Amino acid sequence: MSPRAAALKESVCAANLELAASGLVTGTFGNVSGVDRDAGLFAIKPSGVPYAELTPYHVVLVSLETGEVIDGDLRPSSDTPTHLEIYRAFPCGGVAHTHSEFATALAQARLPVRCMGTTHADYFRGDVPVTRELARDEVEGEYERNTGLVIVETFTENGISPADVSAVLVANHGPFTWGGDGHEAVARSEMLEVLARMECTIRAIAPDAPRPAAHLVDRHFLRKHGREAYYGQD
Amino acid sequence: MSPRAAALKESVCAANLELAASGLVTGTFGNVSGVDRDAGLFAIKPSGVPYAELTPYHVVLVSLETGEVIDGDLRPSSDTPTHLEIYRAFPCGGVAHTHSEFATALAQARLPVRCMGTTHADYFRGDVPVTRELARDEVEGEYERNTGLVIVETFTENGISPADVSAVLVANHGPFTWGGDGHEAVARSEMLEVLARMECTIRAIAPDAPRPAAHLVDRHFLRKHGREAYYGQD
Amino acid sequence: MSPRAAALKESVCAANLELAASGLVTGTFGNVSGVDRDAGLFAIKPSGVPYAELTPYHVVLVSLETGEVIDGDLRPSSDTPTHLEIYRAFPCGGVAHTHSEFATALAQARLPVRCMGTTHADYFRGDVPVTRELARDEVEGEYERNTGLVIVETFTENGISPADVSAVLVANHGPFTWGGDGHEAVARSEMLEVLARMECTIRAIAPDAPRPAAHLVDRHFLRKHGREAYYGQD
Amino acid sequence: MSPRAAALKESVCAANLELAASGLVTGTFGNVSGVDRDAGLFAIKPSGVPYAELTPYHVVLVSLETGEVIDGDLRPSSDTPTHLEIYRAFPCGGVAHTHSEFATALAQARLPVRCMGTTHADYFRGDVPVTRELARDEVEGEYERNTGLVIVETFTENGISPADVSAVLVANHGPFTWGGDGHEAVARSEMLEVLARMECTIRAIAPDAPRPAAHLVDRHFLRKHGREAYYGQD
Repeated sequence: MSPRAAALKESVCAANLELAASGLVTGTFGNVSGVDRDAGLFAIKPSGVPYAELTPYHVVLVSLETGEVIDGDLRPSSDTPTHLEIYRAFPCGGVAHTHSEFATALAQARLPVRCMGTTHADYFRGDVPVTRELARDEVEGEYERNTGLVIVETFTENGISPADVSAVLVANHGPFTWGGDGHEAVARSEMLEVLARMECTIRAIAPDAPRPAAHLVDRHFLRKHGREAYYGQD
Repeated sequence: MSPRAAALKESVCAANLELAASGLVTGTFGNVSGVDRDAGLFAIKPSGVPYAELTPYHVVLVSLETGEVIDGDLRPSSDTPTHLEIYRAFPCGGVAHTHSEFATALAQARLPVRCMGTTHADYFRGDVPVTRELARDEVEGEYERNTGLVIVETFTENGISPADVSAVLVANHGPFTWGGDGHEAVARSEMLEVLARMECTIRAIAPDAPRPAAHLVDRHFLRKHGREAYYGQD
Repeated sequence: MSPRAAALKESVCAANLELAASGLVTGTFGNVSGVDRDAGLFAIKPSGVPYAELTPYHVVLVSLETGEVIDGDLRPSSDTPTHLEIYRAFPCGGVAHTHSEFATALAQARLPVRCMGTTHADYFRGDVPVTRELARDEVEGEYERNTGLVIVETFTENGISPADVSAVLVANHGPFTWGGDGHEAVARSEMLEVLARMECTIRAIAPDAPRPAAHLVDRHFLRKHGREAYYGQD
Repeated sequence: MSPRAAALKESVCAANLELAASGLVTGTFGNVSGVDRDAGLFAIKPSGVPYAELTPYHVVLVSLETGEVIDGDLRPSSDTPTHLEIYRAFPCGGVAHTHSEFATALAQARLPVRCMGTTHADYFRGDVPVTRELARDEVEGEYERNTGLVIVETFTENGISPADVSAVLVANHGPFTWGGDGHEAVARSEMLEVLARMECTIRAIAPDAPRPAAHLVDRHFLRKHGREAYYGQD
């Protein structure tokens, strides 16, 4: 195995441990992956391995082209085909999946995490959408791959840029997030959960509260992420 | 006392301490038991003993046939007759009882923990039901035994398999869970509480949200628990 | 100072530190007292002293007859006259006052902590009532004393026994609890907060849920507290 | 740099670390400043620096007159112009800004933190108001300065004294608080979040609950803050 592949496995292992430390996961739920597009592969957590026992050795390498395991003694996460379809369609470097409580509650209620203010707009430029329900044949067929395809469809059909909104709720399932690498994907899962908690509070006390104007959302997103960002140090 | 009985007491003591460490119990609430069907007995926490002082020595052995104490200097949990009826009717190896906050809130509202998504379906194949209210003579008579009988009745009358759904809410009381042994019963109490919290959130913000289709529930339950399970390592 | 008075100051200091450790108080909010009826006095936390600096030396002794300070260099809690009226009317050994979040939210909403199940009935035999609002002259006069008087009035007018229900919510203010001594009063404040959290959840998702029957409430209260109690060890 | 300026930077650094320790901030969100009116300057957190790395050296000094940086190698918080306008209009010594969860949820719902009881009145003499939405040109122009101006406008137009109510919610954004110095501003942010959590609970279960009378609010605010305060020790 190349030094670069070894480094990717180490980075993805670390990102998975960050996810475990974040408090967003229960038991062995959740998984993080990271991609090396030049090498045509991504690294992902093995299926059902307790976080406390996870080492870079356990991390599995999977081909971006075939979805087959390239390296690793363990079976990759059962959600691997979902990660694969996200990498194929979205220009990102890392993907995280959790069953974090409030994002999952919204996914189960089939409600988006609406952009209600600047805390949201600092990270996501608009609502975090929820996918349509999968059809029976999509569930009984290649279920995990179809989960990835319905995520991509949600962005394509609604004209949402995965660079502007780097998160999605899968109906009756839970959230996926993405970013420059696995660490950033995990950080966005953490922020998404904070936003989902606030969204659940707002829906409970003021479901019809007015939305922030687009220029406020843009102002916050772009002062952090745009070409003319002025938040933070250079 | 046989080595096997000593091992059971040790295992049940450890499972009770896991319950205490889970954060699901307040004060001396809650209890866990484990059964040895070949020996015709089960081991259970003594009544009202603080978890911090609990040792395997304190654990009480009770006859599956008569419900009498076989071994132990302390009085067994006042909920012992409830555990007994569960063991008599359901093919399980351990039982746990808590007053965990959100499962209890639903029990008090006489509402089931509905299966609203895959996090639930990964553990329980359908709604976690709530029992009917006990009648006055059931409460004033053998109250704890009748609590066990109404749990069993809830599964029998509604055609629910205790292997598919290994948890119940007792009306105006709280949850009981079961599994292969006491440890697994505790783990399910923990997961049930997570699901109950999400269910309370969904009921507050979207009480009429659409339910997931049966094929999605089955897909998740069976990928973890069925004969053709593909989650985790072999 | 007599050894008995010194012991009371030590016990009340410890109970106040238990309150601080319980997580129920923010800043210097909250106070606990304990009474010595034979000596005609009670011991109470001084006003506005940070819990981290509290020692038995700081605890103030107050006369049950006159309400005057008998011993102590510091001013007693501003709520001292409330404690005094509770001791005068109710046969208890300790009183605790907190602004714990959910009990206070219910007090602010002027809603009782309804008895919705057995977790409640294990501690309180019926609803924890909320007082009426104080009149303007009661607020502008001896406010803290009138707070105590309205607590007593709430139990007298509604025929509630302070032995059955050892807690109250003061309208737009917060909870008071009492028990055999300061430690027990604190333990009841902790349990009241758990019950108040569940009550807020139930009110949010099922405000009209059916109440448990009186025979269920009595069964649980009396199996722990009555003459024929069978919970715990003898 | 004068010893007084150095002391101010140290105090403001410490107050920012208190904010980080309070659990009210996620990531690099939030900032605290403190003013030296005689020197005509205030000290504020630099933009986007992780709290774990923050030292007094990083703290930036800004002119009260021009809003220009007087001392410091880093760019000041992007919210600096908001702090400036608050210092110009309100007689306070420190300002804190957070995105604390429940205060932000209310800001996003454009709902005030209503004064519903004595816990609130002990700190704030009346409702914590929410600003109007900024107009498009206010957002696209000097956004952060206009945020400060709309805060001031909220108090002026509604005749609220910033000494009585030392906190505000900016619509669709989040809370600002102020006090005698940065530490006190942080303490009020913490208390505001507790009150916001209770307000969200009350709005969920009893949105039309009666408000406390003005004499009760005044009694509590003035027993702690007025000239005739009798809470605490002299």
